[in-house]
Amino acid sequence: MALIVQKFGGTSVGTVERIENVADRIKKFRDHGDDIVVVVSAMSGETNRLITLAQSIDEKPEAREYDVLLSTGEQVTIALLSMALNKRGVMARSYTGGQVHILTDNAHNKARILNIEEKHIRKNLDKGKVIVVAGFQGVDEDGNITTLGRGGSDTTAVALAAALKADECQIYTDVDGVYTTDPRVVPDARRLDKITFEEMLEMASLGSKVLQIRAVEFAGKYNVPLRVLSSFDEPDFNQDSSAKKQGTLITYEEDEMEQALISGIAFNRDEAKLTIQGVPDKPGVAYSILGPIGESNVEIDMIIQNIGADGTTDFTFSVHRNDFELAQNVLKKVANELGAREVKGDDKIVKISLVGVGMRSHAGIASKMFKTLAEESINIDMISTSEIKISVVVDEKYLELGVRALHSAFGLEQKIVEQ
Amino acid sequence: MALIVQKFGGTSVGTVERIENVADRIKKFRDHGDDIVVVVSAMSGETNRLITLAQSIDEKPEAREYDVLLSTGEQVTIALLSMALNKRGVMARSYTGGQVHILTDNAHNKARILNIEEKHIRKNLDKGKVIVVAGFQGVDEDGNITTLGRGGSDTTAVALAAALKADECQIYTDVDGVYTTDPRVVPDARRLDKITFEEMLEMASLGSKVLQIRAVEFAGKYNVPLRVLSSFDEPDFNQDSSAKKQGTLITYEEDEMEQALISGIAFNRDEAKLTIQGVPDKPGVAYSILGPIGESNVEIDMIIQNIGADGTTDFTFSVHRNDFELAQNVLKKVANELGAREVKGDDKIVKISLVGVGMRSHAGIASKMFKTLAEESINIDMISTSEIKISVVVDEKYLELGVRALHSAFGLEQKIVEQ
Repeated sequence: MALIVQKFGGTSVGTVERIENVADRIKKFRDHGDDIVVVVSAMSGETNRLITLAQSIDEKPEAREYDVLLSTGEQVTIALLSMALNKRGVMARSYTGGQVHILTDNAHNKARILNIEEKHIRKNLDKGKVIVVAGFQGVDEDGNITTLGRGGSDTTAVALAAALKADECQIYTDVDGVYTTDPRVVPDARRLDKITFEEMLEMASLGSKVLQIRAVEFAGKYNVPLRVLSSFDEPDFNQDSSAKKQGTLITYEEDEMEQALISGIAFNRDEAKLTIQGVPDKPGVAYSILGPIGESNVEIDMIIQNIGADGTTDFTFSVHRNDFELAQNVLKKVANELGAREVKGDDKIVKISLVGVGMRSHAGIASKMFKTLAEESINIDMISTSEIKISVVVDEKYLELGVRALHSAFGLEQKIVEQ
Repeated sequence: MALIVQKFGGTSVGTVERIENVADRIKKFRDHGDDIVVVVSAMSGETNRLITLAQSIDEKPEAREYDVLLSTGEQVTIALLSMALNKRGVMARSYTGGQVHILTDNAHNKARILNIEEKHIRKNLDKGKVIVVAGFQGVDEDGNITTLGRGGSDTTAVALAAALKADECQIYTDVDGVYTTDPRVVPDARRLDKITFEEMLEMASLGSKVLQIRAVEFAGKYNVPLRVLSSFDEPDFNQDSSAKKQGTLITYEEDEMEQALISGIAFNRDEAKLTIQGVPDKPGVAYSILGPIGESNVEIDMIIQNIGADGTTDFTFSVHRNDFELAQNVLKKVANELGAREVKGDDKIVKISLVGVGMRSHAGIASKMFKTLAEESINIDMISTSEIKISVVVDEKYLELGVRALHSAFGLEQKIVEQ
């Protein structure tokens, strides 16, 4: 008896059979009495097919027309899913982003949602209909079709949940929730029942690619209860609402989680670092180094500056591994201009991060982290901290060892419950 | 220096290469100074792909969602063609049926156009842009996506030309115009420079499948000059406007054509006829025979009734060959109820029709037709006439012979112009 927004990604609707499965699942929720708004992505492979078509005409196709093209992918899915629901006797009605007035700015290919007109949806929900909305797309104020960029369907779902004040926004994926770390690295990684928005943001940006980061920001801003769960598990309506539920709920409610110092361990294999040594230390030096990097469209992650002994400074930062060579070339030119001594680089590094709101009020997390790594003889290259996160950069060969040691040291393992 | 609406069908935009060719053609018209509105169909094969998807979910998919699905086909083409134009430096802008406000009734899958808002188009034309509109689709007054049914892109083009008061609506196909008859049957069939709307309607409904009949009706109603021409021929801007132009122009201007008694010979191979003999002749008998046929969704073409000598009547009509068996079964039941003597059927017949506005004011066409057929010993089974058409039904084995004899008798051959 709740209003639930459910989002199914490209893999969950990748074939006609899977669309039929999604329809079966939605029917169970309807039979249970819930009001359902569904957001779907394009069938997996379809977006790539369309991109290939566009690029065979123009390597850099015009942004406006690119959105007109790509938005057809989700439109196919909403029609097929609505047909499948109607065949099951579940009254359903599809809406494109334009039809349901998902108003965005006019930044084609990466538009941001400004407003959603919920009156159409509300009217049809009141008639007992399931509303099936095309994710990833909207219209600007002139009626041009826009897209939110890859993964934007999550954002559509959260924005709809916010506009409708839904009881929950459920994101169905091929994993059954958010884990303390990647189970492929730490086999006894534990699924989290709850996680805060802030933690989820740190986890997402650090490589736990369960949810689009913009969707999490949106959910946090509008306080939309967001649940990540598997599209393969059967819905369980019999569970006590206070008991452990399916998937992972992303929420504001920090209270229950106070005991947990650390919620999870994220890591990122795609890192590379660059150091410019012996830069004359004077005001504006950081900008004169990072400015040209930014102008080359290279995104910088961590930044560290040390004062050297001789009145010069060493400057180290990390970039995405794909940008390593470009950034190195830019930096060499900068070094020349600044009269710096040397440019060094390393693209065989990884970043490991402890994330947890609990660390705000608990000292000693950092030292425990460093001690654990030292005991495994893992050398730390860079350190960066925030309110709820500590990140270290280490040689990539230590990734698995480091994550496992930290997972165990902070007691994140799957708890064996005695019967 | 004209405003031209150009329509390209699925074959003309069937591959990326063909879309590039269409863009090249449009660029030539723009370079010549013409304002261009383009209407395109889905890439050939795409609509069938979508239909297969829908039918794998539901053999009779819901009409509203079917339209949401099918309309994506044209949306893909408008985006790709606009990209190709923009790449050539030809400013272009795509519009879906909904975006350009092609308002239709709500008869999903076979909607009719009620109105087109031309202000968006006009504004962008004034800016020198080529407007690329998705054919075949519109929206009803509630914003639901509708489609006009197969071939509806022709109607979209004509409706746009009417709304914009375009100088010409050009329908590009894989033939270079309308012929006096099918060139595969009569090798020296001649391309007509001009034909009237009424003649075209008779030709189209009789099997010269160059243009959608609804598009011709629409063009006639709003007096839109309609030209059928080949997408393979190079545009020729050097020709004198009073000289013979490319393709076939469909127009109201009958004056120039007064000498021509007959414009063309149409034929239809998909005919079958049914006769119910010895029906007691009383009022209402026609309805009691044809009513049940119509209720079975069988369309009736020609109808003939003869009074017999014994106070009974014979009733013959023709149907599409696919409906022959169904109609025969219905008719046998009817014969039983009416106490008729016998039901006879023949599905090995064809219809041959002379079409021409000239026959209105000239006697003797019918007798010349019958004499020509008699000289070839072709027996006539049924005759039906209208203001501008005489149709006969003959055994299918006489089709080619009959058409060739009539084509020659009425002097429709290609004229050899002496240099």
